[in-house]
Amino acid sequence: MPTAPSPLAYIPFVSVENMMRFVHHFGIEKILVELTDAIEADYRRWDLFEKIPRLASHSRDGVIELMPTSDGEAFSFKYVNGHPSNTAKGFQTVAAFGLLARVDTGYPLMLTEMTLLTALRTAATSAMVARHLAPGNAKVMAMIGNGAQAEFQALAMKAVVGIEEVRLYDIDASATAKAARNLGDSGLRVVSCTSAQDAIEGAQIITTCTADKAYATILTDNMVGSGVHINAIGGDCPGKTELHKDILSRAVTFVEFEPQTRIEGEIQQMDASYPVTEFWRVLSGDAEGRGDARQITLFDSVGFATEDFSALRYIYSKLQGTDFFQQIDILADPDDPRDLFGMLQRAA
Amino acid sequence: MPTAPSPLAYIPFVSVENMMRFVHHFGIEKILVELTDAIEADYRRWDLFEKIPRLASHSRDGVIELMPTSDGEAFSFKYVNGHPSNTAKGFQTVAAFGLLARVDTGYPLMLTEMTLLTALRTAATSAMVARHLAPGNAKVMAMIGNGAQAEFQALAMKAVVGIEEVRLYDIDASATAKAARNLGDSGLRVVSCTSAQDAIEGAQIITTCTADKAYATILTDNMVGSGVHINAIGGDCPGKTELHKDILSRAVTFVEFEPQTRIEGEIQQMDASYPVTEFWRVLSGDAEGRGDARQITLFDSVGFATEDFSALRYIYSKLQGTDFFQQIDILADPDDPRDLFGMLQRAA
Repeated sequence: MPTAPSPLAYIPFVSVENMMRFVHHFGIEKILVELTDAIEADYRRWDLFEKIPRLASHSRDGVIELMPTSDGEAFSFKYVNGHPSNTAKGFQTVAAFGLLARVDTGYPLMLTEMTLLTALRTAATSAMVARHLAPGNAKVMAMIGNGAQAEFQALAMKAVVGIEEVRLYDIDASATAKAARNLGDSGLRVVSCTSAQDAIEGAQIITTCTADKAYATILTDNMVGSGVHINAIGGDCPGKTELHKDILSRAVTFVEFEPQTRIEGEIQQMDASYPVTEFWRVLSGDAEGRGDARQITLFDSVGFATEDFSALRYIYSKLQGTDFFQQIDILADPDDPRDLFGMLQRAA
Repeated sequence: MPTAPSPLAYIPFVSVENMMRFVHHFGIEKILVELTDAIEADYRRWDLFEKIPRLASHSRDGVIELMPTSDGEAFSFKYVNGHPSNTAKGFQTVAAFGLLARVDTGYPLMLTEMTLLTALRTAATSAMVARHLAPGNAKVMAMIGNGAQAEFQALAMKAVVGIEEVRLYDIDASATAKAARNLGDSGLRVVSCTSAQDAIEGAQIITTCTADKAYATILTDNMVGSGVHINAIGGDCPGKTELHKDILSRAVTFVEFEPQTRIEGEIQQMDASYPVTEFWRVLSGDAEGRGDARQITLFDSVGFATEDFSALRYIYSKLQGTDFFQQIDILADPDDPRDLFGMLQRAA
C-alpha cells in the first residue's frame, strides 16, 4: 500500500509568487539592507569559501551558467542564463533559480526562484561596495541602462548608501519612462535624462547596466570626472564590456574574484598586468579602499557565487514560521535507504 | 492588481511520487529498454556534446556534484550527492534531481527528481554496454553489492541483454534478502549466495556495485575467469575502487569519458599509460569491442552527464498528455521583460 512520503522527502520551494509576497511582507528596502549585511558578512570570511569560476555553457544566443560555492557547512548553486536577444522574444534576458544544501549529508534544503533574488542580491552587492568606496556623503547616482536591474540598484543605493537623487538614462526612452514611473513613490528625486553625459552631471556614483552582448562604450574617458565611484555591472561575460579602456587606466579597480573577472569583466580589455584589488581585502584591512577624494574608484562587478550563497541563506533563515513556500517532494526517501526499488514497487 | 503568472512562468516538475506513477504506468522493463536506446542514440552522436568532467565539491562526509552537458539544442544538469555514511543516518547515499533547458533562450523546460531516474539510467547504461561487450548468449549475472541499485541492474540486464538468472551477494545478508524479495516476481531465477566467489559461479556478467568510500577489493584476480564481462559501477569517486588491479591488467577496459574516469574510476589504480577505450568509439566503429570469447571485458563505469541528458529528454518526451507532473512557478515573467520591478510592485 502506498504511504505518504516521509518528511525527509520534502524541501521548501519558493516560487516567484511567494518571493514577491516575501518581499512585500518584509519590505524591499529592509530586505536590501539586511541582504547587504549578509553578503558583507560572508565577504568577511572569504577564505572559508570554496571558490571556482562559474561553469559556463556558451552558445550563439547566450550563456547558461552554474555558479556553485560552499563554506564547508552549506553548499549552494545558482542556475542562470544570459540571453540578450531574449527581450525581443518576450523572455527575460536573465532567469535564474537556486538551491541551498547541507554539506554533511548532501541533501537539498531549499529550492527557490532567483530571477528576483538575483536582482536583489546584485543591487545589495553594488550597495555593499559603494558604501565603502563611494565618496563620502554621496547623494546623487546616475543610472545608465534602465532595464530590469535599474530600480533595484536605485533603491539599494538609497537604503544602504543614502543617495537622494537618481538620474536615469537609456538609449531606449521607454525604458527610462518605465523606471521613472516605477520609482515615482520611492522617495528618491528621479531625473530622466536624454544622454549619458546629462545623466552623470553632478553624480558621485555612476552605475552602468546595459545588456548588449558586444564590446560597447557606454562611458568614454572625457565624460568621467575625478572623485566618482563607478559601479559597472553590465559587462559580465566574455566579449561584453561597457567602459572605454582609458577610464580603466585612470581608475583604481576592485573586483569580486579576480580569475573570473579577468575573463568576464571590464578588465578583459586590459592586459593581465593591469592591477585590481579583490574587494574582500578592503573589508579585511589587507588592502586600501578609496585613497583620496579625487580618485576614480571602479567596481567591475560580474556577480559571484558567494553573493548567491548569502542570498539563499538569508531567504532560508527567514522562511521559518512563514507560508512563503510550498513543500515539494524531490527526494526519494525509502524507509530503508538500500530499498529504493522496494519503495517503487510498493507505490504500484 | 496582481494577475496570474503567464504560461512562460511555469515549468513541469516531476516529483518522486509522479516518477513512481510514471514508471508503473509505462512499465519498468519497457522504460529500461527505451532508456537504453535513448542513451545509445546519444552515444552515437558523442561529438555533438559539450563534455566537461563534473564539478565536484568534496567534504569529509561525501561529495556534491553538478553534472552539466549540452548538445547545442538542449542543456541539462544533474545535482547529485554521494555520502556513504548517510545510510547509517537514515538518508540515501545518493539523492539527485535534474533540469532540462533550452539552449536558445536559456529557459528551463523541466525539473525532476533524479534519485529514481539515476537508478534507471545507470542500469540502462550498464545494459547498453553489456549488450555490445558481454559474451554472446549471456544468461547469468552475478550481482555483488545488493544495495539501492541492485534490482534495477538485474531488470535492465534481463530486459535488454536477456539474462535469466541473477546471483546475489552482499557482505550484509539482509541486503541480499531484500533484493531477493524484491525480485521475487521479476521472472528472473534469483540465487542468494554467501560469498562473492559463490555468486560469480557460472556468471557471464559480473556486476559490482558496493558503496564503501575506500579502496576495496570486491573481486580478486583468481576469482575472475576468462570470457566474462565485468560491469563495475561502484568505484565512482577518487579513493573508491572495487577491483584488484591484477584484474585490470588482464582485462580490456572501456570507459565513458576518459578524463573523468582517470580521476574517479577503477583505473585510478593504474598509471596514465594504461589503455582504455571510450565506449562511444565501439558504437561508431572506430574501435573494437569484445575481441574473442576468452577476453575479459571491463566496463569501468562512473556515470556521465550525457546519460542524464538522455534520461531527462526521454522523460520530457513522454510527459506530454500525462498528469505525471505539477506546474511550478519558477520563472519570473513580467509582461515587459525589462519591467521586473513593475511586476513585483504590482503584486503588492
